[in-house]
Amino acid sequence: MTVYLGSKAKQIKGSRLGMTKKIIVLGGDGFCGWPTALHLSNCGHDILIVDNFSRRHIDEELGASSLTPIASLQDRIHTWEAVSGKQISFAEIDVANDYDQLLMTFEDYQPDVIVHFAEQRAAPYSMKSSKHKRYTVSNNLNATHNVCCAIVESGLDTHLVHLGTMGVYGYGTAGMKIPEGYLDVNVETDAGTQQKLKILYPANPGSVYHMTKTQDQLFFFYYNKNDAIRITDLHQGIVWGTQTKETKLAPELINRFDYDGDYGTVLNRFLMQAAIGYPLTVHGTGGQTRAFIHIQDTVRCIEIAINNPPEKGEPVKIYNQMTETHRVRDLAKMIAEMTDSQIDFVKNPRFEADENDLHVMNDCFLKDGLSPTTLKAGLMEEVMEIAGKFSKRCDTSKIPCVSNWHQSK
Amino acid sequence: MTVYLGSKAKQIKGSRLGMTKKIIVLGGDGFCGWPTALHLSNCGHDILIVDNFSRRHIDEELGASSLTPIASLQDRIHTWEAVSGKQISFAEIDVANDYDQLLMTFEDYQPDVIVHFAEQRAAPYSMKSSKHKRYTVSNNLNATHNVCCAIVESGLDTHLVHLGTMGVYGYGTAGMKIPEGYLDVNVETDAGTQQKLKILYPANPGSVYHMTKTQDQLFFFYYNKNDAIRITDLHQGIVWGTQTKETKLAPELINRFDYDGDYGTVLNRFLMQAAIGYPLTVHGTGGQTRAFIHIQDTVRCIEIAINNPPEKGEPVKIYNQMTETHRVRDLAKMIAEMTDSQIDFVKNPRFEADENDLHVMNDCFLKDGLSPTTLKAGLMEEVMEIAGKFSKRCDTSKIPCVSNWHQSK
Ligand SMILES: NC(=O)c1ccc[n+]([C@@H]2O[C@H](COP(=O)([O-])OP(=O)(O)OC[C@H]3O[C@@H](n4cnc5c(N)ncnc54)[C@H](O)[C@@H]3O)[C@@H](O)[C@H]2O)c1
Ligand SMILES: NC(=O)c1ccc[n+]([C@@H]2O[C@H](COP(=O)([O-])OP(=O)(O)OC[C@H]3O[C@@H](n4cnc5c(N)ncnc54)[C@H](O)[C@@H]3O)[C@@H](O)[C@H]2O)c1
Repeated sequence: MTVYLGSKAKQIKGSRLGMTKKIIVLGGDGFCGWPTALHLSNCGHDILIVDNFSRRHIDEELGASSLTPIASLQDRIHTWEAVSGKQISFAEIDVANDYDQLLMTFEDYQPDVIVHFAEQRAAPYSMKSSKHKRYTVSNNLNATHNVCCAIVESGLDTHLVHLGTMGVYGYGTAGMKIPEGYLDVNVETDAGTQQKLKILYPANPGSVYHMTKTQDQLFFFYYNKNDAIRITDLHQGIVWGTQTKETKLAPELINRFDYDGDYGTVLNRFLMQAAIGYPLTVHGTGGQTRAFIHIQDTVRCIEIAINNPPEKGEPVKIYNQMTETHRVRDLAKMIAEMTDSQIDFVKNPRFEADENDLHVMNDCFLKDGLSPTTLKAGLMEEVMEIAGKFSKRCDTSKIPCVSNWHQSK
Repeated sequence: MTVYLGSKAKQIKGSRLGMTKKIIVLGGDGFCGWPTALHLSNCGHDILIVDNFSRRHIDEELGASSLTPIASLQDRIHTWEAVSGKQISFAEIDVANDYDQLLMTFEDYQPDVIVHFAEQRAAPYSMKSSKHKRYTVSNNLNATHNVCCAIVESGLDTHLVHLGTMGVYGYGTAGMKIPEGYLDVNVETDAGTQQKLKILYPANPGSVYHMTKTQDQLFFFYYNKNDAIRITDLHQGIVWGTQTKETKLAPELINRFDYDGDYGTVLNRFLMQAAIGYPLTVHGTGGQTRAFIHIQDTVRCIEIAINNPPEKGEPVKIYNQMTETHRVRDLAKMIAEMTDSQIDFVKNPRFEADENDLHVMNDCFLKDGLSPTTLKAGLMEEVMEIAGKFSKRCDTSKIPCVSNWHQSK
């Protein structure tokens, strides 16, 4: 069923004339999608959110919920209108399984840009059981393929901005900084000479979830080549933080904060654990190095990507969307010191190397004007404003990670 | 619904004791699957065919049918039992959409080997419309993923043999023979030194169908790495010919011969066109070079792959399953001369390079004992025995290729 809350083609008050774009945010009720929708609305763009609330249903399945009390999407949108005077429209569509609705919505709304967040995004959830593996594969691959298909079928020259993950690269780098999407290699020809090739960075996924993102890349490669769809694929690091400038404007606009063993990402879990006096749970030796980005920078990066679309016919544009890398045990130490917490080294449920280095290029966004929120500057606010303030809502039984990479039932 | 025709665990008469394997042939009613099932049965293995008859339904959808009059699967199996004294079992399961049945069948039958042909395999069909694109993606990716998932969930140490395509490589080679699956490359490290890597050959699919096969490779890479599934992926060339030693044993065992614009592959289409006096339809300049293999060699290669499984923990074994490469216009010329036919150069409906070279390594199979059926030796038999004999069954209205790579409705 489709519900449009706002009026679709209406000129928005205060929009920067001439620069207003019609943007569909697929997965716009989620952790990254909601603040992105608000930020882009605030920039003066005309926004249509598409979501099927699968993330809220998964909370019910897991008996978990956001640490922050999130409002219904209807209340979120109404509050945003009251606070900003700007309207956001909404259509409830399952992007993976309701192609006809999706196509109709594209044809009707005529988006200049589609930002695609609508995938199952937790690696541990994707490894819980065979059912969860199959849901993740079917949901993510059919969603991305439906979006590509509908852009082609609608005949629109829409710029597709997709959220991928740093995890497509794998976590072993061959003594070099991870480039932005493409790798220059030399191959030996039959004549014995060296030939230069630019290839997609060889995929090395670490979970079923990550695997779907490496397969998404092939959808993009193919549809860009055959149908000249303009695509930007953002290989995002682990997002931390909760609030952005816009979500702080009213309590009903607050963003979700996941801390459970499936959806909680490492840094937000540490913050919440510190706030409630639970030992920080480090998996294995904590020698894993990961890339991070603050949610405020996520929304800014997406704005930058939208403002810098690839030309028609240009290959898929790939950006690394991260600002810092840290070793997990160093993060734990930093937070433990700040908050006087304990650290608990637990058995790693994941199948991965104990220790890895990670060096990443992120020149594209820096060159285009991103000024990152550093961990050092933002951490304390998170601990006090979010984890501390809502710690009473925490269900500590949901903290342990129970998904096991080698357990299939 | 599951129907077992044969008794599952029964010892088969005349089997080579100790070497008998329990083999599931997924897609065993199809063009490659049926002769493979017979060949492996004849080798003494215990065979269970799984199919959902989607290929026969697609014939109905297209109003097309095999040039050869193929019997129902029940009749095929009964005839085989009468002729050979060997039983073949059958279960009707949609591999992509009936996971529970598939898993139960694996647990019940305990296969040593699964040969996986159960995918939508025609590039032109995959490009007919958005619906056909989505069917191909959903069918092929969910089928392959379900098979991997069910092997893991069943806990069986099954050897999975999958049929891929030469098309995963794309048709532009950088001055070198296409290796078997993996490519050795050099990358420059940050220290300025060269580092050697062995990577999956960079994918470059030319249609939605081919794209699904490049995505299958990532399923295999991941499940082999995470769960140590033993996998052989056969990158097959275009199969030509119709009959094998076994399918010739009775008229009811005859294999299918597709000649329509969607499923007919180039060489079989030429043979049929020659037999009915229809000009040989060459797409574009006919400068495309393609790899070929006779159906008799296909079944033999699969036997060889089964006899040479990778060890537990070994990376995915990739073989190029082809025996000759030819330029399409040279093939047309060869057949036109043999049969005194005309050649008709028509507009190429595909989006591909006009001319390409193709050099392929196929050392693995040659080393393991394959002695190829050459085009020169086998062509005349095909023209006389199949295309000529059944030419009255040809519906010439089905010959033109109507799928267009740039038409989406
Ligand atoms: N959160 C992170 O740390 C992170 C890091 C890297 C990449 N990403 C990527 O960013 C994207 C968004 O992540 P998130 O953290 O906001 O996840 P999320 O689960 O909070 O949000 C995803 C949203 O998409 C919706 N959705 C899922 N499947 C859908 C479908 N078939 N139809 C319609 N809506 C559907 C969900 O209901 C949810 O609202 C994901 O693709 C994720 O892989 C996130
Ligand atoms: N024929 C060729 O020239 C050629 C060349 C290279 C690779 N291949 C590969 O070999 C395999 C077999 O090809 P073919 O020519 O025999 O094709 P085919 O269409 O004749 O046979 C495929 C069989 O699989 C069955 N099938 C499809 N989806 C299924 C599902 N979801 N559940 C159960 N059964 C299903 C079909 O009913 C059919 O009987 C394919 O994977 C194809 O990509 C074929």
